[in-house]
Amino acid sequence: MPHPFDQLNLEEVRGSHSVKWSLFPEDVLPLWVADMDYPIAEPIAQAIQARLSKRIGYPQGAGDPELLDAIIAKQERLGLKGLQRENLWLTSSVVPGIYASVLALSSVGEEVITQVPVYHPFLLALSDYGRVTKANPMQPGASGWEIDFEHLESLVTPATRLLMLCNPQNPTGRVFTRSELEKLAEFALEHRLWVMVDELWADLIYEGEHVPFASLCEEIAQRTVTLTGPCKAFNTAGLGGGVAISHNRAILERMQNVSKGVGGHPNVLSMAAWLAALQHGQPWLRETLAYLKANRDFLSRFLAEKLPEVGYIPPQATYLAWLDFRALGLEDPHKFALEQAKVALNDGAIFGEGFKGYLRLNFATSRPLLQEALERLAGALKASMVDDR
Amino acid sequence: MPHPFDQLNLEEVRGSHSVKWSLFPEDVLPLWVADMDYPIAEPIAQAIQARLSKRIGYPQGAGDPELLDAIIAKQERLGLKGLQRENLWLTSSVVPGIYASVLALSSVGEEVITQVPVYHPFLLALSDYGRVTKANPMQPGASGWEIDFEHLESLVTPATRLLMLCNPQNPTGRVFTRSELEKLAEFALEHRLWVMVDELWADLIYEGEHVPFASLCEEIAQRTVTLTGPCKAFNTAGLGGGVAISHNRAILERMQNVSKGVGGHPNVLSMAAWLAALQHGQPWLRETLAYLKANRDFLSRFLAEKLPEVGYIPPQATYLAWLDFRALGLEDPHKFALEQAKVALNDGAIFGEGFKGYLRLNFATSRPLLQEALERLAGALKASMVDDR
Ligand SMILES: Cc1ncc(COP(=O)(O)O)c(C=O)c1O
Ligand SMILES: Cc1ncc(COP(=O)(O)O)c(C=O)c1O
Repeated sequence: MPHPFDQLNLEEVRGSHSVKWSLFPEDVLPLWVADMDYPIAEPIAQAIQARLSKRIGYPQGAGDPELLDAIIAKQERLGLKGLQRENLWLTSSVVPGIYASVLALSSVGEEVITQVPVYHPFLLALSDYGRVTKANPMQPGASGWEIDFEHLESLVTPATRLLMLCNPQNPTGRVFTRSELEKLAEFALEHRLWVMVDELWADLIYEGEHVPFASLCEEIAQRTVTLTGPCKAFNTAGLGGGVAISHNRAILERMQNVSKGVGGHPNVLSMAAWLAALQHGQPWLRETLAYLKANRDFLSRFLAEKLPEVGYIPPQATYLAWLDFRALGLEDPHKFALEQAKVALNDGAIFGEGFKGYLRLNFATSRPLLQEALERLAGALKASMVDDR
Repeated sequence: MPHPFDQLNLEEVRGSHSVKWSLFPEDVLPLWVADMDYPIAEPIAQAIQARLSKRIGYPQGAGDPELLDAIIAKQERLGLKGLQRENLWLTSSVVPGIYASVLALSSVGEEVITQVPVYHPFLLALSDYGRVTKANPMQPGASGWEIDFEHLESLVTPATRLLMLCNPQNPTGRVFTRSELEKLAEFALEHRLWVMVDELWADLIYEGEHVPFASLCEEIAQRTVTLTGPCKAFNTAGLGGGVAISHNRAILERMQNVSKGVGGHPNVLSMAAWLAALQHGQPWLRETLAYLKANRDFLSRFLAEKLPEVGYIPPQATYLAWLDFRALGLEDPHKFALEQAKVALNDGAIFGEGFKGYLRLNFATSRPLLQEALERLAGALKASMVDDR
């Protein structure tokens, strides 16, 4: 029997006005921006509906206490312990938390270190606000994309102030091991850096185990702000919802201060959705994760068989594939995919300097659409090689 | 037959975790923060529910085109013409628009003029970001609370940069006349000021007519940003949603720039709710307005009969009453109301210097609760006067 996700309702998806499905003409298959083409979980829809019968007045500034407690309980299960409500600050989504931490934990002209390739708003937050990016390119190694600790050390100057980490990592899909994270923690402590860690993808792991960075030790907890939210695991991107977590309240206060008044207040339906996800979302998540994993494996087989020139390390987490098209000799793989194959992917160049020639593919769509997109890519590449002869 | 709003479901209201109903103990009647105790309109609830069947992915950055067009059509009906989609910038609610306009249209140390008393975030935005408040106290006159144009003129210095206007006005409930607005426009043009006008209350008018400030003339349109949203008319405060409108795109771009990354993206359910309000909300709004007007008139009669010492000019708009308790000789009327009468009102002092002794009362509750609150106030005052003897 086909999985329900195999039978995507294109009319509903297109009718949602999402940026993914409306930016390009209808003959383009959009496998770019990171949301899933699946409907939200039934318990979430039901919770939103139930919430509508109550009043939709101004929420408490800190958010619904029930939600805060559910987030704390969830973090406990992940291994981040000892949080109180006051260690949480709800943001309208995760990106505002990224920007607020850059503004709060560094000054104009100061240096911020991050592994690249990385989710591009990390880099945008730095350039938008005049911080200096110190990029540490990851290297393919035995455990996939690896941190180059030697190069990392060489990046530090007296002006280095903040380390930005994405774990699990977008776009490589790496789940950093405890020992890698411990080395990063030592590095941060040695150089007295603040740490912003974005753990938004922690629920979408196929292999490996999520270790909350702030759980490594109390000293690190005092230097770290952890960002997360419901949108990746539960496909609620359009609803927003995010949280900045720190054992060090002063970090949160600084983040609140730098964005005072412009961040807005929590949204009551987003909070209801998030609470329902935490309380009742596990069965949906489990099933979705299995479907995504099968998509990932389908992609791996397809690439091995039909596009062996594409460099690829299967992601341990996320529904993103980081594809190296450089061996194919295309001038602009992103443009090629869009124009020749009619498949919209993310251009690797936005994820950091030196990643032109890479593409990011979002496989959180139906199996048939994923297959169609891959066949279009393979077909267009074949045609272009014939042309070249 | 009693009106459905007369039969408030206290369990539902309390269960909503709203700040209004959770800040004080249960024996306090909360008539403070500006939301209504009524359920949202049925067409809004239905639209949200319908939206859930589509996908909840990332929306387009500028917002749903249908919503933008509906806002433009609504502004046309109000008299603000010639808007294109690019003249609109969706914000997570109106307050972020207030802050962003202060940040964009003035610098640290520059002076900003506003009538007081005024919605306190106007004043907070200025103090939070180091702007100098030049307050022009309104004066009771023939048409209610009036602008003191002579004093206004005296406030201008070379450092004056921005005029912030609230129309209809919170907390006085004034609807400024066309001729008052024209005088303000002349003033702004003569001194080359930017103008931020908050017209969030424009749909809740009992007497008078709403004139969009930016509609006065093209020169003023080029200097003005208009803020509005769905939350007051349609009681969707917990859902957010706001828009900054300007014929001068450069103003919006500056506002976007100063809050880049920290404002978040539009919320798909809030947009669906707002669109439904604009398309199908009129019958609910008409009925609600009639109920609110009857509440206002009930309040007026009650004050005249039982609390004649309370200074009061019935509001022409909003569901807020601005009450002058100074003649009652209480040390702290706000504290008195809360502790002796068990009624939570807003302290006048937050709305501007010189308004200690005033209270703001929100009458968007059920008639029985409004009556109960007023009787508590009258009873406590009577008791206190007996005590004093
Ligand atoms: C690592 C990471 N952080 C944050 C976000 C965006 O989060 P939000 O939509 O909650 O702002 C994404 C989205 O792709 C992401 O991959
Ligand atoms: C004049 C005025 N502007 C803005 C707001 C708040 O708007 P929002 O909830 O959309 O931020 C209020 C709420 O009372 C108000 O009275």
